[in-house]
Amino acid sequence: MTVAAIRKSFGSDNHSGTHPAVMRAIVEANSGDAVAYGADPWTERATSDLRRLAGAEGEVYLMLNGSGANVLGLGLLLARHEAVICAESAHINTDECGAAERILGTKLLTVPAPDGKLTPELIASRLGGRGDEHFAQPGVVAVTQSTELGTCYSLAELSKIRDFCTDNGLRVFMDGARLANAAAYLGCTLAELAEHADVLSFGGTKNGAMGVEAIIVMRSADTASVPYLRKQHMQLSSKMRFLAAQFIALLEGDLWLRNARHANAMATRLASGLAGLPGVEVVYPVEADAVFARLSRPHIAELQRSWTFHVWDEETSVVRWMTAFDTQERDVDEFLASITATVSGGARG
Amino acid sequence: MTVAAIRKSFGSDNHSGTHPAVMRAIVEANSGDAVAYGADPWTERATSDLRRLAGAEGEVYLMLNGSGANVLGLGLLLARHEAVICAESAHINTDECGAAERILGTKLLTVPAPDGKLTPELIASRLGGRGDEHFAQPGVVAVTQSTELGTCYSLAELSKIRDFCTDNGLRVFMDGARLANAAAYLGCTLAELAEHADVLSFGGTKNGAMGVEAIIVMRSADTASVPYLRKQHMQLSSKMRFLAAQFIALLEGDLWLRNARHANAMATRLASGLAGLPGVEVVYPVEADAVFARLSRPHIAELQRSWTFHVWDEETSVVRWMTAFDTQERDVDEFLASITATVSGGARG
Amino acid sequence: MTVAAIRKSFGSDNHSGTHPAVMRAIVEANSGDAVAYGADPWTERATSDLRRLAGAEGEVYLMLNGSGANVLGLGLLLARHEAVICAESAHINTDECGAAERILGTKLLTVPAPDGKLTPELIASRLGGRGDEHFAQPGVVAVTQSTELGTCYSLAELSKIRDFCTDNGLRVFMDGARLANAAAYLGCTLAELAEHADVLSFGGTKNGAMGVEAIIVMRSADTASVPYLRKQHMQLSSKMRFLAAQFIALLEGDLWLRNARHANAMATRLASGLAGLPGVEVVYPVEADAVFARLSRPHIAELQRSWTFHVWDEETSVVRWMTAFDTQERDVDEFLASITATVSGGARG
Amino acid sequence: MTVAAIRKSFGSDNHSGTHPAVMRAIVEANSGDAVAYGADPWTERATSDLRRLAGAEGEVYLMLNGSGANVLGLGLLLARHEAVICAESAHINTDECGAAERILGTKLLTVPAPDGKLTPELIASRLGGRGDEHFAQPGVVAVTQSTELGTCYSLAELSKIRDFCTDNGLRVFMDGARLANAAAYLGCTLAELAEHADVLSFGGTKNGAMGVEAIIVMRSADTASVPYLRKQHMQLSSKMRFLAAQFIALLEGDLWLRNARHANAMATRLASGLAGLPGVEVVYPVEADAVFARLSRPHIAELQRSWTFHVWDEETSVVRWMTAFDTQERDVDEFLASITATVSGGARG
Repeated sequence: MTVAAIRKSFGSDNHSGTHPAVMRAIVEANSGDAVAYGADPWTERATSDLRRLAGAEGEVYLMLNGSGANVLGLGLLLARHEAVICAESAHINTDECGAAERILGTKLLTVPAPDGKLTPELIASRLGGRGDEHFAQPGVVAVTQSTELGTCYSLAELSKIRDFCTDNGLRVFMDGARLANAAAYLGCTLAELAEHADVLSFGGTKNGAMGVEAIIVMRSADTASVPYLRKQHMQLSSKMRFLAAQFIALLEGDLWLRNARHANAMATRLASGLAGLPGVEVVYPVEADAVFARLSRPHIAELQRSWTFHVWDEETSVVRWMTAFDTQERDVDEFLASITATVSGGARG
Repeated sequence: MTVAAIRKSFGSDNHSGTHPAVMRAIVEANSGDAVAYGADPWTERATSDLRRLAGAEGEVYLMLNGSGANVLGLGLLLARHEAVICAESAHINTDECGAAERILGTKLLTVPAPDGKLTPELIASRLGGRGDEHFAQPGVVAVTQSTELGTCYSLAELSKIRDFCTDNGLRVFMDGARLANAAAYLGCTLAELAEHADVLSFGGTKNGAMGVEAIIVMRSADTASVPYLRKQHMQLSSKMRFLAAQFIALLEGDLWLRNARHANAMATRLASGLAGLPGVEVVYPVEADAVFARLSRPHIAELQRSWTFHVWDEETSVVRWMTAFDTQERDVDEFLASITATVSGGARG
Repeated sequence: MTVAAIRKSFGSDNHSGTHPAVMRAIVEANSGDAVAYGADPWTERATSDLRRLAGAEGEVYLMLNGSGANVLGLGLLLARHEAVICAESAHINTDECGAAERILGTKLLTVPAPDGKLTPELIASRLGGRGDEHFAQPGVVAVTQSTELGTCYSLAELSKIRDFCTDNGLRVFMDGARLANAAAYLGCTLAELAEHADVLSFGGTKNGAMGVEAIIVMRSADTASVPYLRKQHMQLSSKMRFLAAQFIALLEGDLWLRNARHANAMATRLASGLAGLPGVEVVYPVEADAVFARLSRPHIAELQRSWTFHVWDEETSVVRWMTAFDTQERDVDEFLASITATVSGGARG
Repeated sequence: MTVAAIRKSFGSDNHSGTHPAVMRAIVEANSGDAVAYGADPWTERATSDLRRLAGAEGEVYLMLNGSGANVLGLGLLLARHEAVICAESAHINTDECGAAERILGTKLLTVPAPDGKLTPELIASRLGGRGDEHFAQPGVVAVTQSTELGTCYSLAELSKIRDFCTDNGLRVFMDGARLANAAAYLGCTLAELAEHADVLSFGGTKNGAMGVEAIIVMRSADTASVPYLRKQHMQLSSKMRFLAAQFIALLEGDLWLRNARHANAMATRLASGLAGLPGVEVVYPVEADAVFARLSRPHIAELQRSWTFHVWDEETSVVRWMTAFDTQERDVDEFLASITATVSGGARG
């Protein structure tokens, strides 16, 4: 089947296909039989490499997608009766159709968070009813790194959250669907990020994989229930070698980091090109692979006739432009040219 | 990474890799950008082709694995308070770690079923407490086709179950993880099988795919909740074209059927070779890609030193030997030779 | 056991005991055997009387407490994947420890609501993502009448919400833990309130009962799952006659309405006495049996040394004073005298 | 309302009303205000007395009914992914409409149990798949004492189960809806029963209460989640003093034990009267307040015209006759006379 490729999308980092090296690894993994459900050498290698990279004493588990990683990560940290504190803009709150509530029966205690980032103060604002059986009891704090708004927690910010949580009997889950972009921005190792969480996900899909995520459990004491929860959560892959091969390729020669650096650079290029352009306001710091910009509704409509991207907030007229591992400089430049032409042109806006 | 392939496994049809044609389709789908979450031409083609093949008025949804397909299929048919009638040997009862109970909060009302097949009489045996609030209220009957024991319901048997269920206000879910093998055995179309269910799954993974299953909803009235449940159940794939491409390849030139016919033929070849062999008793009719055989524990142990397969029932000393789309005649013949040598040899058993 | 009664509490309408007439009815119901689980003449009478009073074509079910009534009422209206729209201040959101999420797996989509009341505009603000599988899908709107802030929806306000919901494919659940107080305030019948909901609860406990609530299902089409959900939700009482007797007593001679009128009158008396008092600001209209007032932290502390009541919002220094069916005028007057003395006295505040 | 009492029922021990002493305690508790949700002196006294009686180091919690007690007791012992081993005849499996599955998302792994009693061997038969993520993972063993079949575990039998469970990493939940009857039969203390469980329920309702059960948590380490689970499970009573008063009355002068002894004696009297009667076969040892008997369908039908009782098993033609704290000797004798007349008379049977 031949399908005419769409123009480079700025709609999402999962509009991209699979990185060629990842695809090669998948094809190579297709050699003969392998025991199913992860008892194969590819899975052994991918998980042990990820474990080392994250500095985890616990274990690493391959998952089928991001929602699966998030719900499992929260579920293994939560006592049956506990609730989750997260930013209002958290993916688990806004973009998963209520999966955490449906699957875990937990309540999300949300806080409006500037730039998508929680702080100890914001977390503290939801601790009011602890110990009173009428109130939902927070047990886990969920942070997203990089955030849904294209920003990154600094290591110092993560450290403060971590300390606050330790002092207050809270566990930390890190949604790392775009963790690579944060590592690239911060110039830090995966382990330096991971040490601030009890459990984290590490996203492959938005980073060039075909479809795979990892759950990294930092302490071995927290691993006991994971294999069973993964199965119950319908996240256990039978031919797991094909998930594992993807991470093997991403880890080879730090492809994951190079992909992330490139995507970040493309977002920065886009943001730089917007600087000083009248009628376009970048609304969050550009620290990962996303640019959030406010422009007029007619301009948005005109741009969407030629380009693929999402309106993030209808009310405030803010759009999200995402780059990816395979966004080219010329894609950005063409897009910038279109934006410039649009906001400069005619009587609109 | 190079891994020495293990000897052809008789352990499971998911010990196989991906059929070359499926792999080619995946590689070809990796061209440029595509909108995520299924709004792409590959998904449109795969689902519309599957819909036509099954004769469904409803819709088809691509899923990440078999547990995901089963739980979703049951969930969309069950009222919130209802229970499921199934065979004791049903995969949903024995092999999914309690996923249906965990995710749907439903109770499985099981019946011992000879050869893994339900009958109207067996179903009726669990209808005793209907209308009494103290008893679990069955709403759905789950059949597996082909069954977990390698047998197939005939179309007449399915028709009787269907009629009984209609008369008794029960919906029918068909677990079709190995539906292709049943179609191959019965020499019928997918539509002739599907018409006996309200919702069915159609398995790709055990049939040569890398990892994909479909949920086929026969009536459009039953589709309303599916996209949301799929997301909540963490079964929505972002780069869905890579799932779709697999089904496109399997449907091309009826590859799905040819694969199933071949796997079935290999199981039949194996069973034929066992006929008359002392010390080996085939315990269920061989109608799909599995041979269940009873042999002595020492013989099992000896065989497992050279071959990969599972003991199905420790107590009765029954093993399960599975074939697959890529099992070769010489694999069967070598395996038969080993079995013959084992059961004939020495003082064991 | 003899326990010295505490001074009349302004902490909650469930600090009161049982109305003498209700207690008499309980004692009288203790005559001989009765079939359990509601197949008794007391339950038949209580539910048919309630059904008539509410103008319901469906059925009435007796429940053990308010959380049970709320969760069941929501559960029978929600499709498996759906979410609930409610005010941030809704009891189901703030005071039930996340029971709706835990038991139903649903998400609460909250809106800040002035005076605790939803409006079509506020409801509309949470409908943005309908039809998109990534967003939680609202199916039910939950209103509380009278509200958690002591206010009442007018019949016109309810009618507007009802019309909006009908037009938008939403069902209406009414949390009527204090429905009697609303009927008393509005001077309307129970049926005039009930007609604006698909399902409502009708509270006995805060109205003078020992412990009983009713779920009123307005349409018979919605009743099918209720008995089973009630049992699964652990809300089915075995010796149900003792629940039924309480409602029989409350309905006899409109005791429920007289109790509510009295409690409302006591709250009005309290609010009137506060008028013009410096250092005390009544923050919501007093339309039921609650007075919310802002006064200084030291004054709150001083009053709590002699009186039982709750601080509603630590941050804004707002307290909640509740009256009940058995609050006496002299209780209010003594309390007013204490308040006056406190806010007038000394250098505090 | 005056209702003609039905003839003494042999249908259930919850067809009885409330013991007069319990009713008196309820009436006496109706004096003035009390803080809600259990922060009252009645609750303090009832729970501390029960705690002492059971020899518990943990805590005691009052619950609204038996299903609530069972589901909470299991829930606090189960890890999120775990399953429960119980007898096929267990109340949680057969009589609660699937509440445990619905509320806890757990799977019940059932075993056919002669006389309703588990043994280490029967428990062991469900431990086959431990450690394999495809199989449900048992974490709790649920025993009922006295059982649903009117039998009692001896202390030695409980001790063996307890030891087996300890050795195998399993926790023990004891459904004590009729624990009093077991204590009466065995002539042991509540503590001697309780020490064999991690958590147990202690039933008031079938023992003469109006409606109350207790959850006894033996170790304080297991109590952390209970208040929150109780609220989420909709089992938190607001005017809890009226629950507590019932247990205070039952504990006063060992009324609970005297009630149970009496009920047991009535069952024994009934069974003794049946001895040697042709056409009536008592099918289980009579060790509590129930007699299970097989008699012909026409005889059952004739008896049910005059007496209230349930057919336990339609297929085997077995009925259940229950006695209660208020069954009189003359009730038993009249019933025996009817039975004798029925099975002796005419051509029936």
